[in-house]
Amino acid sequence: MALRFITAEEAAEFVHHNDNVGFSGFTPAGNPKVVPAAIAKRAIAAHEKGNPFKIGMFTGASTGARLDGVLAQADAVKFRTPYQSNKDLRNLINNGSTSYFDLHLSTLAQDLRYGFYGKVDVAIIEVADVTEDGKILPTTGVGILPTICRLADRIIVELNDKHPKEIMGMHDLCEPLDPPARRELPVYTPSDRIGKPYVQVDPAKIVGVVRTSEPNDESDFAPLDPVTQAIGDNVAAFLVSEMKAGRIPKDFLPLQSGVGNVANAVLGALGDNPDIPAFNMYTEVIQDAVIALMKKGRIKFASGCSLSVSRSVIQDIYANLDFFKDKILLRPQEYSNNPEIVRRLGVITINTALEADIFGNINSTHVSGTRMMNGIGGSGDFTRNSYVSIFTTPSVMKDGKISSFVPMVAHHDHSEHSVKVIISEWGVADLRGKNPRERAHEIIDKCVHPDYRPLLRQYLELGVKGQTPQNLDCCFAFHQELAKSGDMRNVRWEDYMK
Amino acid sequence: MALRFITAEEAAEFVHHNDNVGFSGFTPAGNPKVVPAAIAKRAIAAHEKGNPFKIGMFTGASTGARLDGVLAQADAVKFRTPYQSNKDLRNLINNGSTSYFDLHLSTLAQDLRYGFYGKVDVAIIEVADVTEDGKILPTTGVGILPTICRLADRIIVELNDKHPKEIMGMHDLCEPLDPPARRELPVYTPSDRIGKPYVQVDPAKIVGVVRTSEPNDESDFAPLDPVTQAIGDNVAAFLVSEMKAGRIPKDFLPLQSGVGNVANAVLGALGDNPDIPAFNMYTEVIQDAVIALMKKGRIKFASGCSLSVSRSVIQDIYANLDFFKDKILLRPQEYSNNPEIVRRLGVITINTALEADIFGNINSTHVSGTRMMNGIGGSGDFTRNSYVSIFTTPSVMKDGKISSFVPMVAHHDHSEHSVKVIISEWGVADLRGKNPRERAHEIIDKCVHPDYRPLLRQYLELGVKGQTPQNLDCCFAFHQELAKSGDMRNVRWEDYMK
Repeated sequence: MALRFITAEEAAEFVHHNDNVGFSGFTPAGNPKVVPAAIAKRAIAAHEKGNPFKIGMFTGASTGARLDGVLAQADAVKFRTPYQSNKDLRNLINNGSTSYFDLHLSTLAQDLRYGFYGKVDVAIIEVADVTEDGKILPTTGVGILPTICRLADRIIVELNDKHPKEIMGMHDLCEPLDPPARRELPVYTPSDRIGKPYVQVDPAKIVGVVRTSEPNDESDFAPLDPVTQAIGDNVAAFLVSEMKAGRIPKDFLPLQSGVGNVANAVLGALGDNPDIPAFNMYTEVIQDAVIALMKKGRIKFASGCSLSVSRSVIQDIYANLDFFKDKILLRPQEYSNNPEIVRRLGVITINTALEADIFGNINSTHVSGTRMMNGIGGSGDFTRNSYVSIFTTPSVMKDGKISSFVPMVAHHDHSEHSVKVIISEWGVADLRGKNPRERAHEIIDKCVHPDYRPLLRQYLELGVKGQTPQNLDCCFAFHQELAKSGDMRNVRWEDYMK
Repeated sequence: MALRFITAEEAAEFVHHNDNVGFSGFTPAGNPKVVPAAIAKRAIAAHEKGNPFKIGMFTGASTGARLDGVLAQADAVKFRTPYQSNKDLRNLINNGSTSYFDLHLSTLAQDLRYGFYGKVDVAIIEVADVTEDGKILPTTGVGILPTICRLADRIIVELNDKHPKEIMGMHDLCEPLDPPARRELPVYTPSDRIGKPYVQVDPAKIVGVVRTSEPNDESDFAPLDPVTQAIGDNVAAFLVSEMKAGRIPKDFLPLQSGVGNVANAVLGALGDNPDIPAFNMYTEVIQDAVIALMKKGRIKFASGCSLSVSRSVIQDIYANLDFFKDKILLRPQEYSNNPEIVRRLGVITINTALEADIFGNINSTHVSGTRMMNGIGGSGDFTRNSYVSIFTTPSVMKDGKISSFVPMVAHHDHSEHSVKVIISEWGVADLRGKNPRERAHEIIDKCVHPDYRPLLRQYLELGVKGQTPQNLDCCFAFHQELAKSGDMRNVRWEDYMK
């Protein structure tokens, strides 16, 4: 069957009000970039005529401005899952215009197959190649691509010539069977391949192919500063001490590292540390720092769901495909984040906390317990199943007015049962084998900014009995004081005790 | 090497102050029953002389009065993990005399192998048989038996003649390799066997065998009442509706069910429902209700970690081993609760909430956020990896003075990301695909006791903006009011707003 090449505007005609639409990609990498703008135009035109036009959106994770951004600006998003990071979309979510439910990223594809969130009407995917018989070669972000292509009635393809066809072989693409027929996911080392280098779709479902030439959005990372550098150094020192104590094997274990500046600092510090051998990544997002360490021989292999690097780095990779092709593997998030594989491989997981409490619970999602930041993303998939789980955070924000460590997190995303180590620029709190009071002292002594240590020690002495001395009268005093006076350091416990 | 038969008192001499001791068993089933009392006597004697005597305790889960009870009464417990339910031990934990950290039960064995909690000095195990060459046949609760036997320096055996040697074949016993050498755990249906029917230990480590004739403690369940019966019926109706909608396969999926009265009621209702086919269990604790349904042909097979049944039921099983032997399999908790297997099999998980909040978070552990009840147990292992996760709770306790549904749970054990369905005697709240505000209305409308519905609806209208309208000034008003006036119904929001 010959492919039908169409314009973005023609493609958008296949998307209707109230459709549930699945998109390829994960972070700004690999999501479609021109059809969403055409859908947004349709929505705006409909709204101007007084007609409704909103779609439900399933994605891998966050996407770029040319997907979440344009559709949010057009107020064309009925619901959105499982993760986002776009400013305009976030505003819609927090003002209630868009319904958002954030999910563990490994579960979305299976939940869609199980039928928990309704039908997938349309899949819109970015590819490096597509054949007449329905072989799809994704670009740099896979996300939920195999599942939405199989479930959707109609597939719209963006064929992006910024990605050479020669990347064929850098993907490992498959879908597990559903229970009760599911078998093991036979990944035993990060480089094991268990699927095909392409996705086979029903060619009759491809309603059109739109040619594009659109690079991924740039990720903008702040340069390293002394705080992120110190966090990175503390993570490296902790892992070296675990190796020396015999608790991490001498050959090391695969690493998962979250996204952002702290993650880049951590990878840099691990790469620079002569006591840590060259290692593998079994992660979600492969960032610039991974590629730099690959070139130095410090990272041997990286498996992920997304190659989310800056434009100069992706050009470097494509110019040196011979070097990189056997060192990078991109998989659907159902595999990159899979609990079975993460636990089997013994992945060391490093994720960023938005806020931590002194008992070892983590808030990854909600500012002040109410306002959604991004979502839990893959941090739950990795943390719960890790060999050892680490959360990192600077001890304070906003010139010290906000402590990242509070008596009780205002939203709970990771519980004390799954959080083994917390690291700030001040040090390493090792929570393993400690009860809640011991954890609190460990965190206060090792991680909390000195300005907040006396306050948090006083909190433990307010007279509450029991396993966890949580005072429900004033466990949110830090948050309430911030709202009132703008500085958590102003807390006086007696003002909050009932 | 000939086995050395000794007395409990002689056995206790092999246990020293500050030793870390691992015990077999899971619930009152399968834990040693006479050596702990002898250790407690040693501790009391030491204390009377002014000498310290406390041990660290690793178990499968809770144990009976003859293990946790006697050692707690002797104040002989330095630390305890991963789960407990004994009144005396709970008091020590909540008054700070005993250090307790509760863990996801599937992780303890691997954490011990990884060396996270120090050395295992002694293993004390109950067996149905032991041979001179070190073949160990556990009784009715496996727990962490294979791991502690391999890690410990010394093994003390209680050979309990209440369990016939003919149960050989009802266990599936093994340990996974540790990363990076771990392979798949090849369980594809609940009845798959992947290990041996016995545990091979180094016979040189067996310092003595104590003969006993001690039945397990009786579990005391209250009889069914209208509330638990209604919860059971609601669970059955929900699962039938999921089958009818095509979201659960027609052959059904394996079930995990927590421990207690509600779990018994749920199993009874499922067994009675003609629309639910005969099914399998892949669970933690096999209770009386499972055995009753097996005899009726309604449960085909049950895999678990513990056969925790009443004395009359265990006698029935042993008198009819031909019938039961190919229908029950007992495994270490590292397998019964393993995320890899639970997710692969697509287990439908049903656990009990201590407290739920209107946004779908669950408290399984802490009364009023401070006082430890039991621990998280296996609920996290199963819930997070389930096909669909269900939590059940009566809507109110203490004649309606306590609502099980509150604005914010006072301790978070399961987050909104993992909790899919909540069921009370009033109905079923289906949280899938709903944002936090929608979840709140669903829970209030379907599950909350009518006395509390207006109060909780008012809470949502206190004016808080954002994804989750959590008001940090009064999210614990229910708990504070209970402490103040003894009745959560007395909450007036204006009294709690700052």
